[in-house]
Amino acid sequence: MNHDIAWPGSVRPGGRTARVRESVLRVTGDVLADRGLTGLDLSEVATAAGVGKTTVYRRWRTPAGLVADLLVEMAEQSLPRADTGTLLDDLTANARLVAKTLTDPRQGNLFRAVIAAAAADPATAAALHSFYDTRLEEWAPCVENAVVRGEAPVGTDPRAVLSAVSAPLYYHLLASGDPIDEDVADRSARAATVATIAGTFIVDDWAGQPS
Amino acid sequence: MNHDIAWPGSVRPGGRTARVRESVLRVTGDVLADRGLTGLDLSEVATAAGVGKTTVYRRWRTPAGLVADLLVEMAEQSLPRADTGTLLDDLTANARLVAKTLTDPRQGNLFRAVIAAAAADPATAAALHSFYDTRLEEWAPCVENAVVRGEAPVGTDPRAVLSAVSAPLYYHLLASGDPIDEDVADRSARAATVATIAGTFIVDDWAGQPS
Repeated sequence: MNHDIAWPGSVRPGGRTARVRESVLRVTGDVLADRGLTGLDLSEVATAAGVGKTTVYRRWRTPAGLVADLLVEMAEQSLPRADTGTLLDDLTANARLVAKTLTDPRQGNLFRAVIAAAAADPATAAALHSFYDTRLEEWAPCVENAVVRGEAPVGTDPRAVLSAVSAPLYYHLLASGDPIDEDVADRSARAATVATIAGTFIVDDWAGQPS
Repeated sequence: MNHDIAWPGSVRPGGRTARVRESVLRVTGDVLADRGLTGLDLSEVATAAGVGKTTVYRRWRTPAGLVADLLVEMAEQSLPRADTGTLLDDLTANARLVAKTLTDPRQGNLFRAVIAAAAADPATAAALHSFYDTRLEEWAPCVENAVVRGEAPVGTDPRAVLSAVSAPLYYHLLASGDPIDEDVADRSARAATVATIAGTFIVDDWAGQPS
């Protein structure tokens, strides 16, 4: 995200820092999508981003540090939730957005690489979980509003519903290798909606879970 | 799996080969669970397994070769499907088995490591997809029999149903980091059952999909 975009032509405080971060994280994402975590080298990232090596080593320290900050930026940039007026259409919009992201060549590879990196490194795993926290919180009102409208039963856990919407798409990407397309996305949204309306996602202690 | 177990005391043809494979793959699984793919070294595996290095290099060639054969063995050893007489109970048994596997410290780490390895290597990804093909085929009769019993509508795709059962558990493991427990497993099985009965997993072209 270019934080300067609202101030064209000006150099506001923090502008250079924001531009450095943007360049470094764009290169980081390119390298991850192209070669995975093992291809990520701080010196090479600095050179490709046109940024001093000392700056990169001082600010991000390790490849895991770059991945963690990339996940923060991905959360900052993630698209706002849908607000169509029905649970099914909101969840369908969510599922299609996830499907579109995971089938985009760069983004799909990027998610694969970041999830693989998280499997090997607890700090990266924590950054990944924060990314999903942000996404799941952003979309929670779709479920909360469905409860207010009387479409979904009181006590429905938004996080459980939204996890059920995304999960089959990730299962295809990471486990079975089955294709991801709009039909799969729509089916996932329908399944989660039907189960929500039936009360499957009423979770007694959901307020106590991470949200 | 000890292929000799049906012939105690005897050395049938292939017995030594099977024992070598068993030892090597046990060490491979231990190393993957403990240190991940980057910790996997063929010489060290040979030494720890008490097997000649030449044998290991000739038969498995690379760390990816070890991982692929481990996935074949995991598919061979996987537990038979449930046959309780109802779709909900069969899918609940499936979900609890997946949850138990992914929360077992060794097995959970092993799946994380294997999925991470598949993200970086197409041959490992192919071996991983074969593992899930075997699992999904083993459990498909739970859905097929529900159709025969009239519990689920004709045209229901077993693979889509079973993917929906497992997927939230993998999403917790690999993406959100949310805990996996029996409540989560049972909820996933209920959601998939409700959606199946509602006809959500009737897929026109499922016979054309990999099964």
